[in-house]
Amino acid sequence: MNRIITIGREFGSGGREFGRRLAEELGIEYYDREIITEISKHTQLSEEYVQQIIEHTPHRLYPITIGHSMAYVEDYSFSQAQAVFEAQAKIVKDLAEKSDCVIVGRCSDYILKDYDTYDIFIYADLDSRVKRCIERRTEDEEVLSEKQLRRKIKRIDRHRAKYYSFYTGRKWGDKASYDLCINTTNAVIKDLVPVIAKIFK
Amino acid sequence: MNRIITIGREFGSGGREFGRRLAEELGIEYYDREIITEISKHTQLSEEYVQQIIEHTPHRLYPITIGHSMAYVEDYSFSQAQAVFEAQAKIVKDLAEKSDCVIVGRCSDYILKDYDTYDIFIYADLDSRVKRCIERRTEDEEVLSEKQLRRKIKRIDRHRAKYYSFYTGRKWGDKASYDLCINTTNAVIKDLVPVIAKIFK
Repeated sequence: MNRIITIGREFGSGGREFGRRLAEELGIEYYDREIITEISKHTQLSEEYVQQIIEHTPHRLYPITIGHSMAYVEDYSFSQAQAVFEAQAKIVKDLAEKSDCVIVGRCSDYILKDYDTYDIFIYADLDSRVKRCIERRTEDEEVLSEKQLRRKIKRIDRHRAKYYSFYTGRKWGDKASYDLCINTTNAVIKDLVPVIAKIFK
Repeated sequence: MNRIITIGREFGSGGREFGRRLAEELGIEYYDREIITEISKHTQLSEEYVQQIIEHTPHRLYPITIGHSMAYVEDYSFSQAQAVFEAQAKIVKDLAEKSDCVIVGRCSDYILKDYDTYDIFIYADLDSRVKRCIERRTEDEEVLSEKQLRRKIKRIDRHRAKYYSFYTGRKWGDKASYDLCINTTNAVIKDLVPVIAKIFK
């Protein structure tokens, strides 16, 4: 069976950097945004649209009674969200079966729950996440104040928690779901990764 | 400043074994039951009695109004619990100032919150904790059924959570309070410790 490492992460905690460096250190595949590209191909939806669907939890189905039978109000966006999640699950499983890899996000710990994965969660306190976002800002990113960044971080994590909980029935970031939870508040990821990589060597 | 590693742990998760091995690997002091012995000396209470106090959360103070002034109902067991916690805090700080060390339990992460400690939490699922308790049972320990063990584990952890929360105002086992949370359900502690020890080398 391939060695699969999944990484869940709070926004701004350096989870992607951790995952990328870990994959490099182990010489195995790394999947992050590539999955969005694949979902887009599978569903014929644009990458931006897929991203948007993923970042917003779909509305639940509301049962309504018509005459004596039950029917469900299905809206178009809900079906699309379902299709995206199904495509995502298929792609994540395909990747896991292809070769050793690190997969960041995408509920991959849950999707691969029947595989022998090693599940890591990366988190940090809010101040250090704000600091990291400022340091890592790319030129094409909007300049936000610290206050705006705080709001953005909280909003994104709220969505991640809802999305994860909607599809998995688990609580996002609950340590019971992970093999290892790493607080990057006082950590230097570059130095930490070669240490953690030894778990897999 | 000395290198201080504190370890919180769920009962039966192998936290003590982890701590002992980590201290050995790093060649530094290891404190666990020794602290109880020291508290006993400081408070003139027997080790068994100190242990008993520590395992039971003290009752809260109930404010009562007498005339126009406020007074508190203090009971004897509460004062003793306070005395034990104060002795514990003093001893933990003395140990931290003496040399590099690993300290297991005793709210040491909180007591040493102004020190630059590295805080680890060790946990595992209930089944693996029951299994570990059975494997590690010493000859003088009472033989318990799996069902009884499950109850014992839950009871002890409930006490630990209450005790920790009473004295620290924090939630016991909340990953935000720790630098690293390690799930030992599928881990071999003996193999994991040399890897984690490299964080400190």
